[in-house]
Amino acid sequence: MTQPIRIGIVGYGNLGRGVEAAIAQNPDLELVAIFTRRAPESLQVHNKQVKVLHVDAAEQYRDKIDVMILCGGSASDLPVQSPRFAAHFNIVNSFDTHAKIPEHFQAVDEAAKAGGTTAAISIGWDPGLFSLNRMLAEAVLPEGSEYTFWGRGVSQGHSEAVRRIKGVKYAVQYTIPVPEAIERVRKGENPQLTAREKHRRECYVVAEAGADLEKIAEEIKTMPDYFADYDTEVNFISEEEFKQQHSQMPHGGFVIRSGRTGWQKENQQMIEFSLKLESNPEFTSSVLVAFARAVYRLNREGQIGAKTIFDIPLGYLSSRSAAELRRDLL
Amino acid sequence: MTQPIRIGIVGYGNLGRGVEAAIAQNPDLELVAIFTRRAPESLQVHNKQVKVLHVDAAEQYRDKIDVMILCGGSASDLPVQSPRFAAHFNIVNSFDTHAKIPEHFQAVDEAAKAGGTTAAISIGWDPGLFSLNRMLAEAVLPEGSEYTFWGRGVSQGHSEAVRRIKGVKYAVQYTIPVPEAIERVRKGENPQLTAREKHRRECYVVAEAGADLEKIAEEIKTMPDYFADYDTEVNFISEEEFKQQHSQMPHGGFVIRSGRTGWQKENQQMIEFSLKLESNPEFTSSVLVAFARAVYRLNREGQIGAKTIFDIPLGYLSSRSAAELRRDLL
Repeated sequence: MTQPIRIGIVGYGNLGRGVEAAIAQNPDLELVAIFTRRAPESLQVHNKQVKVLHVDAAEQYRDKIDVMILCGGSASDLPVQSPRFAAHFNIVNSFDTHAKIPEHFQAVDEAAKAGGTTAAISIGWDPGLFSLNRMLAEAVLPEGSEYTFWGRGVSQGHSEAVRRIKGVKYAVQYTIPVPEAIERVRKGENPQLTAREKHRRECYVVAEAGADLEKIAEEIKTMPDYFADYDTEVNFISEEEFKQQHSQMPHGGFVIRSGRTGWQKENQQMIEFSLKLESNPEFTSSVLVAFARAVYRLNREGQIGAKTIFDIPLGYLSSRSAAELRRDLL
Repeated sequence: MTQPIRIGIVGYGNLGRGVEAAIAQNPDLELVAIFTRRAPESLQVHNKQVKVLHVDAAEQYRDKIDVMILCGGSASDLPVQSPRFAAHFNIVNSFDTHAKIPEHFQAVDEAAKAGGTTAAISIGWDPGLFSLNRMLAEAVLPEGSEYTFWGRGVSQGHSEAVRRIKGVKYAVQYTIPVPEAIERVRKGENPQLTAREKHRRECYVVAEAGADLEKIAEEIKTMPDYFADYDTEVNFISEEEFKQQHSQMPHGGFVIRSGRTGWQKENQQMIEFSLKLESNPEFTSSVLVAFARAVYRLNREGQIGAKTIFDIPLGYLSSRSAAELRRDLL
């Protein structure tokens, strides 16, 4: 066996913990160190053998780490960290602020090209695998309509919006695709669907003692952008039930393209990609780890600069050789 | 607008006709000529403006065609035609004899490298998009189980096997996935499934006048390899019903991977890709056409030799630029 690919993790939240676990499922990868902005000794890492270091020590690991997986948030961590690390390391990140992807790509691309590194950005499932399937289905069936449904799953943004309401102690929000809408799409009806017709929202709320429940429910349901355009159900539950039933982070969704082929567009063709995830962060982590392998290979071939999921041959994700893939999986 | 990519079609059966129609859905592609081994004037091509030429005239089009899409069969056409055309043209083919893919790859790779061309082999949906999804899901979820179900769709091989039986005038065979098996897989049970548990087979047969129907049905149901290991239903119908109800070529299927993540493998993660096709050949043709675009771009970049769906960045399939893809689809 060849030397394992040496991985570093930057940031140890849900995503960083998921990456640590995912690396253990890939024998050709080795976790070298976890970097954090917190006091390193305060981190409860799973594998006690792995080094935990302050993020300022990272540059000393330039020759000891092949790929850094950046596990910070898209709002403030990744815009700063990604170019900074790409100057010295091959990186993978899950930058997911859609509107800022072009500028993020450019900043990372410049840093990576200056540093001779390879950087995969916006990796995960959306952006990521869902984006890939939207693109692929459109390329194959240019005459058609595309639909993405999300859920059933926890939306962190919506949960946070509910938690900001006065009198709310804990809250979680599930985004739920409307089955009738999915069925109409699968039947090839190419429906025009409003936000309300595509998804509904379910909130589970633990209120502070003495809080006005009706007022909280009303405030949630009428909140612009987040809830006003949807059918929203608000359930008040006990703290005990909340911790027992709502501490997981499931998610998933569907990318469906319905197209037509033939001179008279007489044949309906349907492409569907779906995910059903019991742990959203662990799945995203698993995608990041597979792309770390690809980034390492691209860099060894001299393919430097920023890359997205559209730019990377998917065979590079596999631990199998190209000849094995042709023989066993094609 | 830049010059369109100039396409040639070799072989004008169901697949070639599908490619002709698919090119018309892609304004950046232009069909230059159709090449056939038959008498060119005997072909009923859809677009009367397009040149129809004998296949022996193809080499004269070396500078007039950017990509040749080879639409012959895998048994005898493609093993000969692919290296021959790859010596002079960028090509795409749908070679689908799984066991012979490695040797086919090598033969085409040598011809393409000698000719400075780029050749995408085994493109379509299986091999093709299904292979890609098997590979991708395995790379992301290394600890898991993978299932491919085919259908409901017409199997040409099984239909042909029925037609060879004495007393059979016309016949079509549908491969049908067993819904209970798919449900067990989707639930994450990771079942061990026999051939019989995964798929059943339905035959629609028009018998010759006076044929022994019971004998035909028995012969079908006990046919080794093709039917003996499956639950097979045989329906005798009139020639009229056959032509009205069974002249289409629907197909499709499901690639499902169920994996587990987390240190205790406590979280189940499910990836599913499915197709529901009213016309199998037209869909395969649509995939071939998108890959013709990719092959052209790869060749312009100097990436010569044989490629499979694992080797090609999927962004190359799209008529959109990389910057547009990042902005609009990521």
